[in-house]
Amino acid sequence: MRIGELSRRTGVPVPTIKYYVREGLLPPGELTSPNQASYGEAHERRLRLVRALLEVGGLSVAAIGEVLAAIDDKERPVHKVLGAAAHRLVPEYGDGGGEDSAGAVDAEKVLARERVERLIEARGWRIAPGSKAVEALVSALASLARVGHGGFVDLLDDYAAAAERVARADLDYTARRVAREDLVEAVVVGTVLGDAVFAALRRMAQVDASARTFVQEEASGPGPS
Amino acid sequence: MRIGELSRRTGVPVPTIKYYVREGLLPPGELTSPNQASYGEAHERRLRLVRALLEVGGLSVAAIGEVLAAIDDKERPVHKVLGAAAHRLVPEYGDGGGEDSAGAVDAEKVLARERVERLIEARGWRIAPGSKAVEALVSALASLARVGHGGFVDLLDDYAAAAERVARADLDYTARRVAREDLVEAVVVGTVLGDAVFAALRRMAQVDASARTFVQEEASGPGPS
Repeated sequence: MRIGELSRRTGVPVPTIKYYVREGLLPPGELTSPNQASYGEAHERRLRLVRALLEVGGLSVAAIGEVLAAIDDKERPVHKVLGAAAHRLVPEYGDGGGEDSAGAVDAEKVLARERVERLIEARGWRIAPGSKAVEALVSALASLARVGHGGFVDLLDDYAAAAERVARADLDYTARRVAREDLVEAVVVGTVLGDAVFAALRRMAQVDASARTFVQEEASGPGPS
Repeated sequence: MRIGELSRRTGVPVPTIKYYVREGLLPPGELTSPNQASYGEAHERRLRLVRALLEVGGLSVAAIGEVLAAIDDKERPVHKVLGAAAHRLVPEYGDGGGEDSAGAVDAEKVLARERVERLIEARGWRIAPGSKAVEALVSALASLARVGHGGFVDLLDDYAAAAERVARADLDYTARRVAREDLVEAVVVGTVLGDAVFAALRRMAQVDASARTFVQEEASGPGPS
C-alpha cells in the first residue's frame, strides 16, 4: 500500500510516519519508483506498536528505538533479549531526595536494600542484586520511608505474591508464541501495556474496597458490606 | 527552623522550596520578622511528600497541587476524598490511535468496554462505569487489540485477582491510620508509590519466571527448573 493508505488505516498522519522512518522506528517502504514507496502489513503492525508504546506506555522515541532494536536483533538468545527489554522497560525513577549535603549515609536506602534482599531470598527469585528493577524497588521503598511510610514494607509480601501471579500469566501468554519475533514483541507489549492495565485494575479494586469499607450508609446496596 | 535548615534536612534547594510555596504546594512559614519565616515538622513532611510524588510518582506540579488540595479540604467525607484522589491519580493515557479518518466505529474499544463490563460484574466491583480508571483500562485493552494482542484479555482474571490482593493490602495499611489527614495522605502515597513498587516487583518476577523457563543450560542452578 502507499503511505497515504497506511496513514488512513492507522490514523497516524503522513508526516509522523515519515518522522518514524527517519528515526529508525519503522523500516522504509519498498521503492516502487524513484519517489514512491510501498508499505506492507509488517509496517502497519510495527506502526501500531510504536503508537501503543508512545501513547499508552509513555515511552520516549529514543527508548522505543532501543526496544525495537532488541526485538530485531536476531542473533541474541531469547532470554538475553527479554532481559535487555525488561532492563530498558524499567521506568527511570528518581529516589525522592535524600541527597544530604553533609554526605551522611542514606539510612533509608540501606534499610530498603536489606529488606529487598530478604524478599528475593524468601521468594527464591533468580535475579541479579544490581538489576535495574531491584534498584527501582529500593528507591521507591526508600522514598516511602522518607515520607513517613516506612511501614509500607509490611505490604511487600502481598505485593510480591500478586506480582508473581501476574508474571506467571504474562509468561503463559508469551509462551503461546512460536516465532521468536512474536515472542519478544509479546513480552514488550505485555510489559509496557500490562503496567497500564494493572494500574487501572488496582484503582478499580481500591474504589471497590474503599466503598465497602467507608460507605456505611449504603447498607441496602448490592454488596456484602 | 529557618528555610536553610529545612533545605539541609530534605536536600531540596532553597529556591525550589520558595517555588513550591509560591505554587501553593507548601504552606508559607510563620513570619518571625518582616523577612524571616519559620518552618516546622509539618512543612518538612509535606516537602518530602511533594518530592516523592514528583520524583517517584512522576506527577506534574499541577497534579500534585490538586491532590494536596483534596487532602487539605477538611469538609469532604473520606470516601469522597479517596474517590477524588483516585480519579486524579489515574495516569492520562492516550488510546493508542484508532482515530479513523472515515469516522468508522472504533470496534476495538466497543469490544474492550464490553469485556471490562463483564469483568466488573463477575467481580462484583462497585465502580461507576464512566470512572477514569475504567476508561483507562478500556483504552489500554483497545490498544493491545490494535497491535494484534487482543488475546491479552485472557489474562484479565489473573490480573484482577492480583489487583484485588494488592488493593486489600493497601486498604489494610491505610485503615491503621486514625487521623483523617494521615489516612488520605497514606492513600495518595500508597497509590502513587505503590504503582512504582508493583511495577518493579512485576519486572523482578518476570525475570525469575523467564530464567526458569528459558535458561535450560543452568540445570545445576539453585532453582527447581
